[in-house]
Amino acid sequence: MSTETATTGRLAAQIVGSSLAEIPADVVHEAKRALLNITGCALGGSLHPAMDIAIDALGPYAGPPSAAVIGRRERFDPLFASMLNGISSHVHDYDDTTPRNYIHNSSPVASALFAYASERRVTGRDFLHAFIVGFEVVSRIGNATYPAHYDAGWHSTGSIGVFGAAVAIGRLLGLTQLQMTHAIGLAATQSAGLREMFGSMAKSFHPGRSAQSGYMAALLAQKGFTAGLRSLEGPRGFAAVQAAAYDLSKVADRFGEDFDLRVNAYKPFPCGIVIHPTIDACIQMRDEHDIDAADIVAVRLRVAPLVKDLCNKQHITCGLEGKFSIYHAAAIGLGRGKGGLGEFTDDVVTDPVLKRLREITEATGDERVSEDSVRVEVQLADGRVLSKDLAQSLGNLARPLSDAQLERKFADQADVIPRGSVDRLMSCCWNVERLADMNELIRLTVPPPA
Amino acid sequence: MSTETATTGRLAAQIVGSSLAEIPADVVHEAKRALLNITGCALGGSLHPAMDIAIDALGPYAGPPSAAVIGRRERFDPLFASMLNGISSHVHDYDDTTPRNYIHNSSPVASALFAYASERRVTGRDFLHAFIVGFEVVSRIGNATYPAHYDAGWHSTGSIGVFGAAVAIGRLLGLTQLQMTHAIGLAATQSAGLREMFGSMAKSFHPGRSAQSGYMAALLAQKGFTAGLRSLEGPRGFAAVQAAAYDLSKVADRFGEDFDLRVNAYKPFPCGIVIHPTIDACIQMRDEHDIDAADIVAVRLRVAPLVKDLCNKQHITCGLEGKFSIYHAAAIGLGRGKGGLGEFTDDVVTDPVLKRLREITEATGDERVSEDSVRVEVQLADGRVLSKDLAQSLGNLARPLSDAQLERKFADQADVIPRGSVDRLMSCCWNVERLADMNELIRLTVPPPA
Repeated sequence: MSTETATTGRLAAQIVGSSLAEIPADVVHEAKRALLNITGCALGGSLHPAMDIAIDALGPYAGPPSAAVIGRRERFDPLFASMLNGISSHVHDYDDTTPRNYIHNSSPVASALFAYASERRVTGRDFLHAFIVGFEVVSRIGNATYPAHYDAGWHSTGSIGVFGAAVAIGRLLGLTQLQMTHAIGLAATQSAGLREMFGSMAKSFHPGRSAQSGYMAALLAQKGFTAGLRSLEGPRGFAAVQAAAYDLSKVADRFGEDFDLRVNAYKPFPCGIVIHPTIDACIQMRDEHDIDAADIVAVRLRVAPLVKDLCNKQHITCGLEGKFSIYHAAAIGLGRGKGGLGEFTDDVVTDPVLKRLREITEATGDERVSEDSVRVEVQLADGRVLSKDLAQSLGNLARPLSDAQLERKFADQADVIPRGSVDRLMSCCWNVERLADMNELIRLTVPPPA
Repeated sequence: MSTETATTGRLAAQIVGSSLAEIPADVVHEAKRALLNITGCALGGSLHPAMDIAIDALGPYAGPPSAAVIGRRERFDPLFASMLNGISSHVHDYDDTTPRNYIHNSSPVASALFAYASERRVTGRDFLHAFIVGFEVVSRIGNATYPAHYDAGWHSTGSIGVFGAAVAIGRLLGLTQLQMTHAIGLAATQSAGLREMFGSMAKSFHPGRSAQSGYMAALLAQKGFTAGLRSLEGPRGFAAVQAAAYDLSKVADRFGEDFDLRVNAYKPFPCGIVIHPTIDACIQMRDEHDIDAADIVAVRLRVAPLVKDLCNKQHITCGLEGKFSIYHAAAIGLGRGKGGLGEFTDDVVTDPVLKRLREITEATGDERVSEDSVRVEVQLADGRVLSKDLAQSLGNLARPLSDAQLERKFADQADVIPRGSVDRLMSCCWNVERLADMNELIRLTVPPPA
C-alpha cells in the first residue's frame, strides 16, 4: 500500500512498536525540558479563573476522585482531571511551541498523561516514552497539514492535540495496532477548536478538551469501540476534511528517526509567540536608551504578515486579549520593560499609560520580516527617532532558553506549592526516567491541605 | 449591524426571547412526532454493543448516578447519560432526517434534554419548547452551511448537532443572551465528526458526543466561562472554517416563523436515507412479481449521484456497513422483502443469498435521478427483465409516515420495556405538554429491575 492509503495503520504500527531505548539521548533530554516547562505552566495557571469556573460548572458531574490535578487540592476522575490540566497549562499561553506548525504539543499530551498516571503506578520511563510518542504524533500530523489546516482557522493545539493524547494514553494502555488505529480514528472524529476563540477562555479549553477527548478515544478503543480505519487519509478523513492541502508522507515517514522535540521552543513571555520579538526588542530599547514611556509619541512596527493576521487587536479590555495584541506587546516592552504573567492581567491592560502606548503604535505587515524578527521605530517628544532590528527573538530555536532559564521560569510560576517542593519537583523532572512511580513527581505538584 | 456580523448574538437573543405559546400548533404536533420517534429509536438501540462498550469503557469515570439512560437500568451523571442516549438513538440509523441538509436533528438535542430532565423536575411544556428551539437551531445552521459543510466530509449530525444540545440545555438553564452567545461559542469550538466514520460505531458516537459537548457548553457558559462572541460568523468561526460556502442569513432570519420541523422526515428503514428508495422499490417488485432471489441474475440501479458518494460499499462484512450499502439495500428488498432492524445484523450481512445479490448488483449515478427516487432493473434467469421507477420513497415528505405508522415503528423497537409501558409511553409523548414533570415519561423508558 502506498503511504497515502495506509497512513493511519502505519502510524499505529509504529506507535505500538516504538521503544524508549531507541530514542536518542538528546531527544530524551529535550522531552524532560518540555515536561519541566509544561508542569511549571500548569502550576502557574492552576488558580486562573477559567479553572475555578470549569470546576464550578463541571465538577459536580465528575466521577470518582481518583486522579490529581496539577496545582490543585481537589481530585476528580482522570478524564476531567485531563481537561483541567489542559486548561491550566495553556491558559497563560506560556507553554511550548513547535515553530514549524505553531502547535503547543505538550499541553494536550502531558495533561492526559499526568491525570492517567496519578491514579495508578506508571514508571517514569513509560511515562516519558508515552509523552515523546504523543508529542511527535501531534507534530507529525501538524507538519503534514501545515499551513493549510492552521490557516483555515483551526487552533491545531486542540484539533491536532487530540491525536497526541489518544496515542500517549493508548501506549500506556498497551493497545494493539488495530485498537490504536481505532483510537486515532476516535481522536480524529473529535478534532475541534476554532481560532475565533483566541482572546477568550475557550482557547485554553482546546487543549483541555483534547486531552480529555484523546484519553476517552483510547479507553473506548481498548474496549472494542470501532472507528473508521483510514481516519487520517480516507476521502472523508481528517486531512481531506480539515486541510485544503497536505502531505501525509510526513505522518509516518522516518518515525523514530526525525524528532520535532529537537525543534521545540519555550516561551519567555506568556503570550502568542509571534509577538515575542516585539516584546524582546522593546525591552532592549527601553533598557539601552532609558526611555520614559511619557516621552514616546509614536511607535512603528514592521512585522511578519502572520502577526497582523493573528494579533491585530489594538483596543483591548482584558488580559487574555493582551496575549494576542501586537500593540500590547510594544506597550509592555516600552512601558514596563518586562513581559511576565503580571503584564497580562486585566488590571494592567487597562493601565492608561499602556493604553496610550497601544494607541500610538502602528504595525505594518512586511513580507521581508520573518516571524522571529521585528523592526521597531520609536519617536520621542524631543524629535529623536530610535530604531532597532531584532533578527532572532529570545526563546526561538536560534536563542533557546537554557535549562537554567527554564528552571527560573518554572520557579516563577510555582507559587501554589511550598518553596521546598520546587527544587524537588524540578529534580524529579530532570530525573524522570529513574522514577519507579510517577506519583513521586505528581504528588509534589499538589498543594498541601490548607 | 448586518446579519453577517451579528449572527451569533442575534440568534442568542432569539433563543432567549422565544416562547412555546408563539409556536404554531402544527409545529408542536410535529415536535411530538419527532419526540415519539427518537424515544423509540433510543429504546431500539439501547442494547446495541456500542452501548455496552461505551458503558464498559467510560462508565467507571462517570459522576454521581443522578440521571437516567433511555432503555437502560444503569444511572450515570447527566453528561455521560447524554452521550449514551445519543449513541442509542442513532446507532441503527433509524432516527429522523431533515432532507434539506441531511441532519438527524433530534438525536443530539433530545439526548441531552432527556438526561437533563431525568435528574430534576422539568415540565413537559419547557421540555418541548427547548426541544423545538434546539431542533430548529440545528437545522438553521445546517441550512446556512449546506451543502458545502456536508460535502466537505462533515457528519453534520455531530458537527452541527452540538449547537442544538447547547441551546436546548441553555434554554432550560435560563441563560442570558450573553451566556447563550458563549454557549454557542463553546459548542462551535467542539464541533466535530467525520463522515469517514460511517460504517463504524463512531458514527453513533457523533450525536452522543455532541449531546454531551453541547450540554457541557451550556453548563460552562452559565458559570461564566467565556468564548468568542462571533463563533458562527467570525473570520475564524464555524462557518468560515467548516464550510467553503454559506449563507448566514439562514441562521436567524424568520426565526419563530419558519420551522424545519415541518420538513422533518421519519425513516421506515434503519439505514442511510438515500438507500431508502431502493429498498422500497425492491420490496414492491418482489411482492408484485413474486420474485425468487435464486432466479435473479443481475440487478441494475440508477440512483442519484450522492447515493454512490455515500453508499458505494459492495463488499461488506458487518451490519453497520450494510446501512450504507446501496447493494445491500437491493439485496434485502429483493431477497427478503423487508428492511427492518433484522436486515442489518452482522449475521444477515454474511447470508450467502444476500452476498450473491450484492455482487450481481450494479449501481450507476445519474444526475436525472433525484435522491427520493430510483430506477431498478432486475434480470431473471428465464430472460425476463423487470423494471420499476419509484418517484417518491416511503417516509419522505411526499409520502410521510402517518402517526399510526410511527406508533408501529415505535412499538417494534420497544422490546426492552414491558409491553404495558409501551402504550403509556406513547401517550406521554402525544400529551407531553400536559406533563407536570418529564420524569412521568422518562420513568417509562427505563426497564424494571431484572
